[in-house]
Amino acid sequence: MTDEATLVSANRCFGGRHERWRHRSRTLGCDMVFAAFLPPGAAPGAPVPVLYWLSGLTCTDENFMQKAGAQRLAAELGIAIVAPDTSPRGSGVPGDPEGAWDFGHGAGFYVDATEEPWARHYRMHDYVVNELPILVERLFPVTDRRSVSGHSMGGHGALVAALRNPGRYRSVSAFAPIANPASVPWGEKAFGRLLGPDRRRWAEWDACALIARAAERLPLLVDQGDADAFLETQLRPEALRAAAGAAGHPLTLRLQPGYDHSYFFIATFIDDHLRHHAAALAA
Amino acid sequence: MTDEATLVSANRCFGGRHERWRHRSRTLGCDMVFAAFLPPGAAPGAPVPVLYWLSGLTCTDENFMQKAGAQRLAAELGIAIVAPDTSPRGSGVPGDPEGAWDFGHGAGFYVDATEEPWARHYRMHDYVVNELPILVERLFPVTDRRSVSGHSMGGHGALVAALRNPGRYRSVSAFAPIANPASVPWGEKAFGRLLGPDRRRWAEWDACALIARAAERLPLLVDQGDADAFLETQLRPEALRAAAGAAGHPLTLRLQPGYDHSYFFIATFIDDHLRHHAAALAA
Repeated sequence: MTDEATLVSANRCFGGRHERWRHRSRTLGCDMVFAAFLPPGAAPGAPVPVLYWLSGLTCTDENFMQKAGAQRLAAELGIAIVAPDTSPRGSGVPGDPEGAWDFGHGAGFYVDATEEPWARHYRMHDYVVNELPILVERLFPVTDRRSVSGHSMGGHGALVAALRNPGRYRSVSAFAPIANPASVPWGEKAFGRLLGPDRRRWAEWDACALIARAAERLPLLVDQGDADAFLETQLRPEALRAAAGAAGHPLTLRLQPGYDHSYFFIATFIDDHLRHHAAALAA
Repeated sequence: MTDEATLVSANRCFGGRHERWRHRSRTLGCDMVFAAFLPPGAAPGAPVPVLYWLSGLTCTDENFMQKAGAQRLAAELGIAIVAPDTSPRGSGVPGDPEGAWDFGHGAGFYVDATEEPWARHYRMHDYVVNELPILVERLFPVTDRRSVSGHSMGGHGALVAALRNPGRYRSVSAFAPIANPASVPWGEKAFGRLLGPDRRRWAEWDACALIARAAERLPLLVDQGDADAFLETQLRPEALRAAAGAAGHPLTLRLQPGYDHSYFFIATFIDDHLRHHAAALAA
């Protein structure tokens, strides 16, 4: 059953293939586009595991696939990569009435909204964790071995996806994640609208809160540039370090000297993350 | 003397640095932005050679630096990369009156125009071959060992820059170059306007014509995807093969099965090109 999704474009890449697909998402109530990289050799008789990549504010499925340079090593390691969009989209989906870039289209924050008018469409957590893998595992020659990573808002999304869903991922990592969204301006704006004013409910979507009661001790690999302009105000890796320390949760947090928030930072360290995931996916 | 250029932005990348600079170009009569990657270890006491990358139609200095994934191996090999813009720019520079993407801004075709109103600004060959290296070699810890490569229109630019200027480059390569611009629609449109109607003058800017009388037998490395939508109508690698064969000029032309005209193609094979240039630059 692949008639539920249509191929948008395809490019040969490192002996494998980069494809963009459009499908109707029941979870999000709109059409969604996602990208997939299939390494050479992926075939029905030789399925490969999948790394899900969650991008940051303003991104689509395209940024990571075009800028991170991940396909070279993913091809060698035999890992597929799937990159969804960062929010529901389309004329039927409400965006930010103020037209800001840090809420609405391109800024779904990987939560399941409970408030109007967002609750109908803004269910990116459910989409990324549940609906999309079902489609991916139907469309492509892949196994149900999954890992998750992401950048900034998507780093938050990756940490929360893993911490909320024990057993679902073999490994998790993040680049410059919004580690403690419930206590920073980006998170306060988004959570206040999507989840309502009761901050106790925000804790269900905050890695620092979730880590205290995680049912699974999946090791966290986090890279953070120390020249990142958002480090102090929005990202707060030190809160993650404190929460992991208090919970005894394994965390490797690497402060990378001189690196900023850009894809030049991601490209520099993506190979380390791919090897981290490959080791867990092969175990 | 670095007051003639100003730093636009800087990112740490693979232990080195990616920088964008703006300067006033006397050759082009306008402000220009270019990008430079300096590998780790490049320093006044340890200067490194430079690969010049010429991009294709519609591109700026940013496309290659963001999408090709070249910095990883360039850092390892100790090669700087400089990526200029693809045309003169700005409100004082005439563009295509029809607003097309294949002429004018973003489409300088790396020639020195002789016709009005283009002759004042459209001198991208002189800029890339002469003015920019003088600035680069003043601004950065680099040697005068230079290589040149490029994509599509920029592949044409790289081949022509090397063939017209014996001794100036240690090596040359191209991805999907417009190999025979004097006989394809993109080239006919641009050369007709920039160089005038006399096709004999076009031959001075056509790799297939230049190769017949090249004073230097610099080996050409060319990769071309066989699923490239522009292969037959605009690129004509078979004309380059015939011209090189007739002239006895060394050419390695690789037809890559299934690859198209995109940066996914370039990223796949950029490492081969970097090693080709590194070997020549070290010799």
